[in-house]
Amino acid sequence: MSITFNEILDFIGTLAFAISGIRLASAKHFDLFGAYIVGLTTAIGGGTLRDMMLGVPIFWMQDPFYLICTALALLWVMIFGKYLIHQNNTWFIFDTIGLAMFTVTGIEKTLSSAGHYPFWAAIIMGTITGAAGGVFRDVFINEVPLIFRKEIYALACVIGGAAYHISILAGFGPVVAGIACGVVVIAMRVLAVRYRLHLPILKGEDDYKKQEED
Amino acid sequence: MSITFNEILDFIGTLAFAISGIRLASAKHFDLFGAYIVGLTTAIGGGTLRDMMLGVPIFWMQDPFYLICTALALLWVMIFGKYLIHQNNTWFIFDTIGLAMFTVTGIEKTLSSAGHYPFWAAIIMGTITGAAGGVFRDVFINEVPLIFRKEIYALACVIGGAAYHISILAGFGPVVAGIACGVVVIAMRVLAVRYRLHLPILKGEDDYKKQEED
Amino acid sequence: MSITFNEILDFIGTLAFAISGIRLASAKHFDLFGAYIVGLTTAIGGGTLRDMMLGVPIFWMQDPFYLICTALALLWVMIFGKYLIHQNNTWFIFDTIGLAMFTVTGIEKTLSSAGHYPFWAAIIMGTITGAAGGVFRDVFINEVPLIFRKEIYALACVIGGAAYHISILAGFGPVVAGIACGVVVIAMRVLAVRYRLHLPILKGEDDYKKQEED
Repeated sequence: MSITFNEILDFIGTLAFAISGIRLASAKHFDLFGAYIVGLTTAIGGGTLRDMMLGVPIFWMQDPFYLICTALALLWVMIFGKYLIHQNNTWFIFDTIGLAMFTVTGIEKTLSSAGHYPFWAAIIMGTITGAAGGVFRDVFINEVPLIFRKEIYALACVIGGAAYHISILAGFGPVVAGIACGVVVIAMRVLAVRYRLHLPILKGEDDYKKQEED
Repeated sequence: MSITFNEILDFIGTLAFAISGIRLASAKHFDLFGAYIVGLTTAIGGGTLRDMMLGVPIFWMQDPFYLICTALALLWVMIFGKYLIHQNNTWFIFDTIGLAMFTVTGIEKTLSSAGHYPFWAAIIMGTITGAAGGVFRDVFINEVPLIFRKEIYALACVIGGAAYHISILAGFGPVVAGIACGVVVIAMRVLAVRYRLHLPILKGEDDYKKQEED
Repeated sequence: MSITFNEILDFIGTLAFAISGIRLASAKHFDLFGAYIVGLTTAIGGGTLRDMMLGVPIFWMQDPFYLICTALALLWVMIFGKYLIHQNNTWFIFDTIGLAMFTVTGIEKTLSSAGHYPFWAAIIMGTITGAAGGVFRDVFINEVPLIFRKEIYALACVIGGAAYHISILAGFGPVVAGIACGVVVIAMRVLAVRYRLHLPILKGEDDYKKQEED
């Protein structure tokens, strides 16, 4: 058995996504099983939705790898729960690597599927692969999905996807395009958090009213 | 390029659905990207679920029309946000046209699919096409779905679907049946809002207890 | 028309699941239509997700049985709403029978599907069939899903699924395996509720902080 570089990235990403789910579940006092489910859904939910939308067999149903990763993530939180907050930077990097990896996987799976989808559809599928698991996680813990409110998260996937497309248009192969996409996703996310970049917040209609009253 | 009447209705409906999502997202202070996603999901979520349930390719993945409509809706809210409240009647009518249009589309796509579904299943698929996007929207903004609590909304789709079926049974073709369905959906919704018609509210078990205490 | 034993169990389970959805919807003052939808989703949501994930036609779309069961459940709640609390034990048993029945159905449908899924995937599909409807219900009423926080519910499906697998490995046929699975699900759930067994709750990071402050 030889382990590829992609498999290592997949492992890191799955672990980080699962841990993010399990941490939020534990903040809401979920039991072990509930935390496991939330962790698993965070890790594999995006890819599952992608595969259901593409009409292809669901990626994890033939391979226990993702279930085992999530079990390791649960163990990690149970053992190191108290110290997780000091590991925040590490998990942020791992989570970002996962985001990049899942985006590339989603794009490539869409392009190689029988549907002959246009490139923008592949970018959407890449974004769903990277970001939808976190949306499911937030729905499960009954919070407004984080990615809708702050941080540049899903947008990093979209820009990364565009970088993939531009690389292909420029004549590069899928390996270079995948690396370009991953680097852009990671760079965007790291810069966004480092410099507290975020998208403009939409004004609600109540805000206009308050403004007039002032 | 010639634009059909159906395409105009589809445009109006998509725009209105997306705007309803973006308005609610902006009330919750979502960022631009989050608001776009909520608007898009409101507009295409019902049809997406329908296509996944029917096992057919998802309608918007070959056609950027819906993404562009949602971008226009976002622009509209950004520019006219302050005045949207004065446009409420217009958007109500457009939203209702969309509801009717999406219901008819859902019914016809189900009947013409390979599944040989019975008519009642087509009516359910029409209702999902019209109403499920709004449910996803409400889940995303972390509110109890509006259609479960007030207004006759999804029920209008069901009655409209029955009108479609009756028209077919009476020997009419799909064009007449589609018009009959659309007119019934619009009439039901307008009358329901105009005369504040709503379905009976179920009593909770707490209410019975309170009653006894009185 | 002859009614099989399986059909009776399916009827009991569907009725109990739908009633659990309708009761919770009525506590939130949903209207009749909303309560019906929540009841229906509780009853058929798990199987619908399973079929979408397996890529097979959705089980209820050719058979009005489940729609009719849910209508009966709605009638029951409307007529006996006041007395439902005194029927709690009965509905608990019926709900547990449904959980067992749906788990077995989910396992068998997965094993007999064209996907050649491994056994652990079939157990997950059985658990989804039994437990996902309740998760949808709780998302609709805007509560944190109950199964993540208390009671041994979905875990009973997993253990029951393992019992199914062990029975097959031991040389028994699917009938014996199905009965073994069902009995284990019911026994686990009844014992868990009777002796207030529950899984350990994960500590949140706030809890660690509080601990240190003490």
